[in-house]
Amino acid sequence: MIVIGASASNGVDEKLASLLNVELIKVHHKIFPDGESYVRIPKSLKGADVVIVQSTYPPQDKHLIDALITVDAAYNAGANRVILAIPYLAYARQDRMFISGEGVSIKVVLKAIKASGVYGLIVVDLHKEESLKFFNGKCVNVTAIPELAEYIKSIISPDKSMVLAPDIGALERAKMFALEAGISEWSYLRKTRDKVTGEITFEPVEIDAHGKTVIIVDDIISTGGTVVKGSKIMYEQGAREVYAVCTHPLLVGNALDKLFKAGVKDVVATDSIPSRVSKVSVAKAIARGIESLW
Amino acid sequence: MIVIGASASNGVDEKLASLLNVELIKVHHKIFPDGESYVRIPKSLKGADVVIVQSTYPPQDKHLIDALITVDAAYNAGANRVILAIPYLAYARQDRMFISGEGVSIKVVLKAIKASGVYGLIVVDLHKEESLKFFNGKCVNVTAIPELAEYIKSIISPDKSMVLAPDIGALERAKMFALEAGISEWSYLRKTRDKVTGEITFEPVEIDAHGKTVIIVDDIISTGGTVVKGSKIMYEQGAREVYAVCTHPLLVGNALDKLFKAGVKDVVATDSIPSRVSKVSVAKAIARGIESLW
Repeated sequence: MIVIGASASNGVDEKLASLLNVELIKVHHKIFPDGESYVRIPKSLKGADVVIVQSTYPPQDKHLIDALITVDAAYNAGANRVILAIPYLAYARQDRMFISGEGVSIKVVLKAIKASGVYGLIVVDLHKEESLKFFNGKCVNVTAIPELAEYIKSIISPDKSMVLAPDIGALERAKMFALEAGISEWSYLRKTRDKVTGEITFEPVEIDAHGKTVIIVDDIISTGGTVVKGSKIMYEQGAREVYAVCTHPLLVGNALDKLFKAGVKDVVATDSIPSRVSKVSVAKAIARGIESLW
Repeated sequence: MIVIGASASNGVDEKLASLLNVELIKVHHKIFPDGESYVRIPKSLKGADVVIVQSTYPPQDKHLIDALITVDAAYNAGANRVILAIPYLAYARQDRMFISGEGVSIKVVLKAIKASGVYGLIVVDLHKEESLKFFNGKCVNVTAIPELAEYIKSIISPDKSMVLAPDIGALERAKMFALEAGISEWSYLRKTRDKVTGEITFEPVEIDAHGKTVIIVDDIISTGGTVVKGSKIMYEQGAREVYAVCTHPLLVGNALDKLFKAGVKDVVATDSIPSRVSKVSVAKAIARGIESLW
């Protein structure tokens, strides 16, 4: 097996190759003067099974097209089977029509990836696992929750902590995180999002957070608005301290500063997206996925 | 029939709807704070055959993904058959492996478009028409050469002019242009491009351009390097004046200034890409394509 590091692999390629103890080849990637991408694999892959690591953090569209071109390049270089491992898959939140006439972006993206001819697809902590139904091929959604939980255990006391999901859709993930971290209490907020403006509001809650360490767990932190509001509510409920944990730290603009300003003590995330808080790698989760796909 | 103007239609959608005398609907397009696109068609398309106009000029990758999401949105809005008309299709120049291990980008792009479920595809003056073999579905390459030739006829004297292709690959297009413009002389330069650096060189030529108006015709002008060198050679051969004509005015950075500085008297291009020299529309060419596809 050979690991291919594509244009947006953020070091996950290196960690994965090292974990699996296999060769790593970095693609030759450049951008033409007009903005088009160019991808070449500078070595023969004759007969090899390969795993391409390519995340699709911003600029998402460039990194998606790069992923597709890299799959083609791998086959052109002689690869046998090609798995595409995408640490962060963009467009996962537009997973259905919220208003009539919308494009279902994740469907479009998964169909384009399928059409590239990949043997299999690995994604990590996908916003909604059901979205993989649009792929119509060999694929697996792996989770970095065990590694995130392991990290958090090293900095908090599980018996004085509770885990909070910002909405009911994130509850299963929060519960899994709590169990992995040895935390016996979890709850969720009632979040609603305006379908047109996207503005979020929370219903009042009665959660006893008095004196506790509250860990807000979500798949993605984008602008940070949800965690800022959730943190505020938890401090009002008597929380001693609030942490935020996510797999995918999009952290648009000054989101991280906003979180710290709101009293979030620390943010723990993975390297699926480059960030100042990428303390845990998704490489192990991807390695588990590879095993299940071949 | 309904025409849909997507995120990068540059007015071609309006001209096309007006030519065909049909309804035009503009998509609702926005970009989320993290950079993801959102596309919605704000009106029911129930049972209608639609033509989406979406070019893929820079940022190419964004506009490509927008095209795919718009096709999905059209079907979600109830469309019957969806034709995607792409005035300028990006990535057309990477149409084969020039060095082993390269991704063939145009193949990847056409496969992704096919996977979107379009009924048919229209492209305009594609770099190499043969590339459409990668699409594997109903598609047509139309040409804006008649409209470009008509425009040039209004500003030059055909009997004192000659048409020049910058390389042999562009000769057929140049010849078609000459015939349409009523110009009886055409020729081509011997251009070679270094496969690694991309640098271009011309072999010496013996073309009698003495006192003539020379019209350099190509499909794309990107950095302008080819036309600048071609123009220099033609002035050395005695040309009275040099014009440049292309379908797709990418004109990266200060390309246009470089062309004028090199003595190019004027540049004539289409609206497949927004530019200061988009004097002709591709709408008529696309209308011809629609007729042949239904």
